[in-house]
Amino acid sequence: MTFIGADTGKWKITSITAVTGAEIPLAECIEVQPAHVVPINCRWALKGVAGQARYVERSERGPLDVSSPSLGRPEATTAVLIPMSKSDAWWVMTQDERRAIFEERSHHIGLSMKYLPAIARGLYHSRDLGEPFDFLAWFEFAPEYEGAFDEMLVELRSTEEWKYVDREIEIRAAR
Amino acid sequence: MTFIGADTGKWKITSITAVTGAEIPLAECIEVQPAHVVPINCRWALKGVAGQARYVERSERGPLDVSSPSLGRPEATTAVLIPMSKSDAWWVMTQDERRAIFEERSHHIGLSMKYLPAIARGLYHSRDLGEPFDFLAWFEFAPEYEGAFDEMLVELRSTEEWKYVDREIEIRAAR
Repeated sequence: MTFIGADTGKWKITSITAVTGAEIPLAECIEVQPAHVVPINCRWALKGVAGQARYVERSERGPLDVSSPSLGRPEATTAVLIPMSKSDAWWVMTQDERRAIFEERSHHIGLSMKYLPAIARGLYHSRDLGEPFDFLAWFEFAPEYEGAFDEMLVELRSTEEWKYVDREIEIRAAR
Repeated sequence: MTFIGADTGKWKITSITAVTGAEIPLAECIEVQPAHVVPINCRWALKGVAGQARYVERSERGPLDVSSPSLGRPEATTAVLIPMSKSDAWWVMTQDERRAIFEERSHHIGLSMKYLPAIARGLYHSRDLGEPFDFLAWFEFAPEYEGAFDEMLVELRSTEEWKYVDREIEIRAAR
């Protein structure tokens, strides 16, 4: 999947905020394309792969699958793209250490569950692709849930896990 | 990292065996190049990224680091490249399920530890890159350890984890 920042596109960008670390160039719109499409005339093109979930355990999978809405719902006219990277201190940890911070101590899944099924999410992995960000998180929701979405971001960003986030951009858009 | 099968290269191929699934084209040699080098005149070019270890836990990391030799030792003139893929049944499992099969039931790390420091290993992840294989395992050892290496393969291939391997090629080489 490639998220393309350009002058035209399905999603009209309403704000770009560099939450942590360096900014990215301004763009008018986001277009979402399959990874094999070569983007032209764009300000940036961020590629990621859905791949398998890295931390979810079996006991969490069922509740997540039941509650998670799909992307592309007609009423979900607000979208947020959050490209982010984690520090070397995160990546040198072993799987059990990363999982403990992710869920047992930061409650990433548990905390996010509260916002289902209002907020649909796609997570795309970019780190192994040599991309500028490690992940691309993409959210879609109806405009009335923007307050809930903001609350979720505040909660997530206050966790221990987020101490390892060393670059984060928040791009809001509407269609 | 890209493993290139071509007419020339540092490592002279001595055998190519399709252990499970489809073969790959014959080649004379393997050349190992950084991922940004564009291979020319080759039979195949298999790319992978070292990335972070997916299953190793903290208690295993120390013993592994202490015992694992580096690649490129002068006496390690035998190399084996094993490109492999796992089935959808593997990838739809959650992290805890994959870990339980990988180590608690198949003893992948524990079993491999017996062959350290004789056998040096590099593991490169390819799945997210849209490559034909999920992983590229690369081994280097002195010729007198080839028997031990064969024994390790027999042990690993008899594990529950290997029931999920749906393509595996074994390419032996010497320099």
